[in-house]
Amino acid sequence: MSDERIWTAAVLIIGDEILSGRTQDKNVAQIATWLDVQGIRLREVRIVPDVEEEIVAALDALRARYDYLFTTGGIGPTHDDITVDAVAKALGVGVVIHPAARAILERYYSKRGGELTEARLRMARVPDGADLIPNRMSGAPGIRLGNLFLMAGVPHITAGMLDALTGELEGGAPLIAHTIGAWAPESEVADLLRQGERDHPAVAIGSYPFFREGRTGANFVIRSTDAAAVAACTAMLTDGLEAAGFAVTDGGI
Amino acid sequence: MSDERIWTAAVLIIGDEILSGRTQDKNVAQIATWLDVQGIRLREVRIVPDVEEEIVAALDALRARYDYLFTTGGIGPTHDDITVDAVAKALGVGVVIHPAARAILERYYSKRGGELTEARLRMARVPDGADLIPNRMSGAPGIRLGNLFLMAGVPHITAGMLDALTGELEGGAPLIAHTIGAWAPESEVADLLRQGERDHPAVAIGSYPFFREGRTGANFVIRSTDAAAVAACTAMLTDGLEAAGFAVTDGGI
Repeated sequence: MSDERIWTAAVLIIGDEILSGRTQDKNVAQIATWLDVQGIRLREVRIVPDVEEEIVAALDALRARYDYLFTTGGIGPTHDDITVDAVAKALGVGVVIHPAARAILERYYSKRGGELTEARLRMARVPDGADLIPNRMSGAPGIRLGNLFLMAGVPHITAGMLDALTGELEGGAPLIAHTIGAWAPESEVADLLRQGERDHPAVAIGSYPFFREGRTGANFVIRSTDAAAVAACTAMLTDGLEAAGFAVTDGGI
Repeated sequence: MSDERIWTAAVLIIGDEILSGRTQDKNVAQIATWLDVQGIRLREVRIVPDVEEEIVAALDALRARYDYLFTTGGIGPTHDDITVDAVAKALGVGVVIHPAARAILERYYSKRGGELTEARLRMARVPDGADLIPNRMSGAPGIRLGNLFLMAGVPHITAGMLDALTGELEGGAPLIAHTIGAWAPESEVADLLRQGERDHPAVAIGSYPFFREGRTGANFVIRSTDAAAVAACTAMLTDGLEAAGFAVTDGGI
């Protein structure tokens, strides 16, 4: 498996509301989970404020480094929605009204008895050369420009855009993950985990402790693109935990 | 208010479990909210995998740029807990066993009838010169080194560490935020919001649309360190929304 091409992605979250603590981000988890299924690894996330030069700097750093870059937030109709302008600046292209986006918005608002005001028309602005990502939820589409994907800040709208992109992106073998859990303090099984990674170089083992019902336990996630390696490592850890006197819950606790 | 020193912070989340989508991060929101009260603005967040060179690169970039840097994750007893080593490398110092941390762990495990094994003793390792951040929850302390704060990945443990740091960090005037909500499509009030920021340069207005009960609405958050400016801008927006036929809910919907 070692000569396999690994496809990577980053997420750039544009949002004062996340940095102020007002809003709990939910896009990282949903994009990460979706990427896993596409055979693409999320390798880095950055959250920056609604400030053009910060967005441009992050776009430049992340675009150069990963196969795909997703942004969330800042594509609505208001003054703080500056993602399109920042992307156009980073790419050195102009901003244009996308005719299909304009048509979608006209249809959307005429159905609802509204007009395509100047503010609403802002949602049809795209960096020159961009394609649209359909948005079944609210009219305003997402934007795709090569390997750059501009998604909504509102999680359920981004979910719809991800649906529309499913199967469209080239990826590698999906990452397979198997979880087992035990009421074991992780400090008592640290050596076993280390041994597991040594014996199975194709896997990565994550250890996630918790404290519940007055007791400490941990879940162990065994990840690899190689299903046989995941199975072998899971068996080895299960045996080791049981030998140390810990009952193992397959699938995690 | 414009000549006031603004104190800034960044958060670096170290965690494969967040990037895989397995775990929903909750530390950004709680650290952000806590920083607001300390008069410190969270300006950037990065999430990187459990890979030493990635952590070191992010530490270098963020340390140089902000007044304070908080990390979460990677300070437990297992093989994937490499934050202390990465920080020591970034700072060019060695790793030592902190005598007070060792004493805390000895006390913690002897009370529970356990031993301070080699794996557990890993949780007493700190970059040379570091102080401890008390952890009432689970023995293993957080680590402070100048303006760098190494916190736990488990949110309720980090919450306890933040409690211990309350009032300890120099900050500026806390940011004051006032929220109002209306069942108004944000595209219909975009001009009003723009006008609000123009007339009140000391404030920043965030617009957060939602779709509930089959209707669209938005909350508007007016933020500033200047309480009078927040009040004036809130009054102006409330008047403008009501003049446009939208009832305003103080505190947000």
